[in-house]
Amino acid sequence: MKRILVLGAGLSSGYLIEYLANVCEENSWLMTVADGNFEALKARTSKYPTIKAKRFDLEHEADAEVLFRNHDVVISLMPAFLQGQVATYCLKYRKHLFTASYCTPDIKGMEGRVKSYGLIFMNELGLDPGIDHLSAMQMIDKIHAEGGKIHTFYSYAGALVSPESDTNPWHYKFTWNPKNVVLAGQGTPVKYLENDKFRYIPYQQLFKQLTNISVEGQGDFEGYANRDSMIYKEIYKLEEVKTLLRGTLRRPGFAKAWDILVELGLTNNEFVVENANKMTYRDLLESFLKPDDSMTIQERLLKHTGRAEDKESLAKIEWLGIFGDEKIKLQKGTPAEILLELLERKWRLNPEDKDMIAMQHRFLYEKNGKQYEAIAELTVVGERSPHTAIAKTVGLPLAIGTKLLLQGHLSHLSGVQLPTDRAIYEPILNELKDYGVIFNEKIREL
Amino acid sequence: MKRILVLGAGLSSGYLIEYLANVCEENSWLMTVADGNFEALKARTSKYPTIKAKRFDLEHEADAEVLFRNHDVVISLMPAFLQGQVATYCLKYRKHLFTASYCTPDIKGMEGRVKSYGLIFMNELGLDPGIDHLSAMQMIDKIHAEGGKIHTFYSYAGALVSPESDTNPWHYKFTWNPKNVVLAGQGTPVKYLENDKFRYIPYQQLFKQLTNISVEGQGDFEGYANRDSMIYKEIYKLEEVKTLLRGTLRRPGFAKAWDILVELGLTNNEFVVENANKMTYRDLLESFLKPDDSMTIQERLLKHTGRAEDKESLAKIEWLGIFGDEKIKLQKGTPAEILLELLERKWRLNPEDKDMIAMQHRFLYEKNGKQYEAIAELTVVGERSPHTAIAKTVGLPLAIGTKLLLQGHLSHLSGVQLPTDRAIYEPILNELKDYGVIFNEKIREL
Repeated sequence: MKRILVLGAGLSSGYLIEYLANVCEENSWLMTVADGNFEALKARTSKYPTIKAKRFDLEHEADAEVLFRNHDVVISLMPAFLQGQVATYCLKYRKHLFTASYCTPDIKGMEGRVKSYGLIFMNELGLDPGIDHLSAMQMIDKIHAEGGKIHTFYSYAGALVSPESDTNPWHYKFTWNPKNVVLAGQGTPVKYLENDKFRYIPYQQLFKQLTNISVEGQGDFEGYANRDSMIYKEIYKLEEVKTLLRGTLRRPGFAKAWDILVELGLTNNEFVVENANKMTYRDLLESFLKPDDSMTIQERLLKHTGRAEDKESLAKIEWLGIFGDEKIKLQKGTPAEILLELLERKWRLNPEDKDMIAMQHRFLYEKNGKQYEAIAELTVVGERSPHTAIAKTVGLPLAIGTKLLLQGHLSHLSGVQLPTDRAIYEPILNELKDYGVIFNEKIREL
Repeated sequence: MKRILVLGAGLSSGYLIEYLANVCEENSWLMTVADGNFEALKARTSKYPTIKAKRFDLEHEADAEVLFRNHDVVISLMPAFLQGQVATYCLKYRKHLFTASYCTPDIKGMEGRVKSYGLIFMNELGLDPGIDHLSAMQMIDKIHAEGGKIHTFYSYAGALVSPESDTNPWHYKFTWNPKNVVLAGQGTPVKYLENDKFRYIPYQQLFKQLTNISVEGQGDFEGYANRDSMIYKEIYKLEEVKTLLRGTLRRPGFAKAWDILVELGLTNNEFVVENANKMTYRDLLESFLKPDDSMTIQERLLKHTGRAEDKESLAKIEWLGIFGDEKIKLQKGTPAEILLELLERKWRLNPEDKDMIAMQHRFLYEKNGKQYEAIAELTVVGERSPHTAIAKTVGLPLAIGTKLLLQGHLSHLSGVQLPTDRAIYEPILNELKDYGVIFNEKIREL
């Protein structure tokens, strides 16, 4: 009998648990869902009498030992910073691991042991990273099989709000980890490949270097570069590629306004503002600006951050309410934490809102002396929470991948993996179609 | 018999060792100079037969134990990142500690034990921090004693090159730790007080927020804010102050050109450029720029960093040679490390060059219903290396302070200290006059 352990019963676990509950019932497998939050556990598992719900603290090693020992594969939905600890337990108790998190150097460093124990640690099997890898590899393998040589590959994805629920001038609401949005571009240096040359984008330039992208039926977006794209040249087996960039999608105008907050210092996470709750948001803005009685605070903000007239961006910032006399809610915090607390209220996805994910791959390649462009596009619109597009597109690949493992379809794979093998991307992409996750592909000669 | 241990025999130790060698001879005290570099040790100590030179590795605890046990006070000229280790040894073996480094939270945290053992850990007793504290406190105590209320205090200092040795368009050469210059503003958040409000300057704004400063007889400078000025409100006993800013001096135009390198990303110390030695400096620049065949690389650099016509800054950057085809010397390194290696050659203080330090305090205060301005200015021009102005102004305060301790003049002080007590600032400032370190003071009614 196969036994699955799911760590994390947060909002994003809904589709995953639902899918695996059915699979377990069909196959007489067992599943345990573990989380520190009892309410979340109840909400996610009470519908399924066969699922065991277990309150669990990763720090408590005796509990962890019992849990890990009694299962065959661990699906971790834990925050990125805890994945190293989860992987360490998986090594210790010799269990397979499936996650949607980025593969870190820590986990990469476990490769030798994971392989020698005959385990799979499958990383980046969610949406982005995840479905982007699956669909990119499917197209790359197809173009290569036909004798094509890919010189350019752009891949963009974004978790956004559906147009019908788009009620703010940023055209954005949080559908995923808000902290990652506020800190985007900090910590991990942004690198990509262009015309066979390495390119670097420092944080202060990231939201200035934008690309316009149109997705059929969904209108216009803008894209900015995401993390280190260069490592995917090897991962995607694209030895021939000269330009390779992975990026994040937002609606046009988002980045230009966000960059004002970046330039001002409001996304800074390196120092703490003490007694923040005695300040208004306007006070906080003032602490970054030079006083000048001849200008309004709005004019000073634009001048200070090097903008001339930029009424559109200013309107977005006005909408946040930070020129007003509202008191800051946190007692103390970094500017980024204070901004995060505000944005979590302003950019909240309400229960009746629908989210949307958009993804676009664009390949330029040569075949038989001719130049081609291939585009693959995906849009998924969510239903009411917890049936969001993001929960679906993060949870289902993990769930289907785990099923494939337990059915023995991945027995040729071992070690620290990304989902680039045909044995994993093909069945997952096929099954995702049943859930409306369908790529639209277009190829044309240039 | 008193015994002094000097850790570090680098370039900056010349004046300190010379001064203390004479003091030791007069008083029949003993001194040991310890360093990992035997050449440096020889160069610094061979003139003084009574000084013991000891090759020493801080990591080797058995050696450290013998050294620390056999002395009464430790003067540490070690790099800032090793001061915590030195302080830990001083606690363990119950020795006084004198340094020119900034007091860190680590060392601050030792306050209880330092005090209970009856020790002094004297920090920030060099030039900046150091002489700035001594002279600021002297003026503050004087103004307070006369019943003045100080509402504004600006304090700027810079280690520069003397005009007669100024041979480059940046009007700057390295006279102190070059790494600190390249990384200035990174790591430690910049904060100050203005009109009774906290102000923050994020890194990307630091070199844009400049103040013009003229020092009598030395011409014009520009100043940018340095670290956290707000903590000095309490340290300087300036409860009444509304504006308090400590800053760094450069010759006009330096910061505007430096800011182009900052905006571009060349001061980034967070990611490594691999195979750097296969690239030219121009290649490195290109890796941050967008390609555009219709513009020169110089034009693209200015456009990319948001400058219109800025020929003066461009001339400074041209002078560094980074538009040319010279190969990078490092095999790999962060952009900041690659820039540092280049600048260490370009901004080298040659043996025949003279350095210069400049400092200016400016107080605005009220006394008997009238408004006053008090300015105290210091300039020191160095002689041939190792008799630089920086070695003199960093080494002598430490040396004199240590003498005061051993003569029993600081017996009323204990714990983790900054040099703000009259018993330390007055004798040091008086004795510094013999060495030409003399403040020029001007007071006028406004």
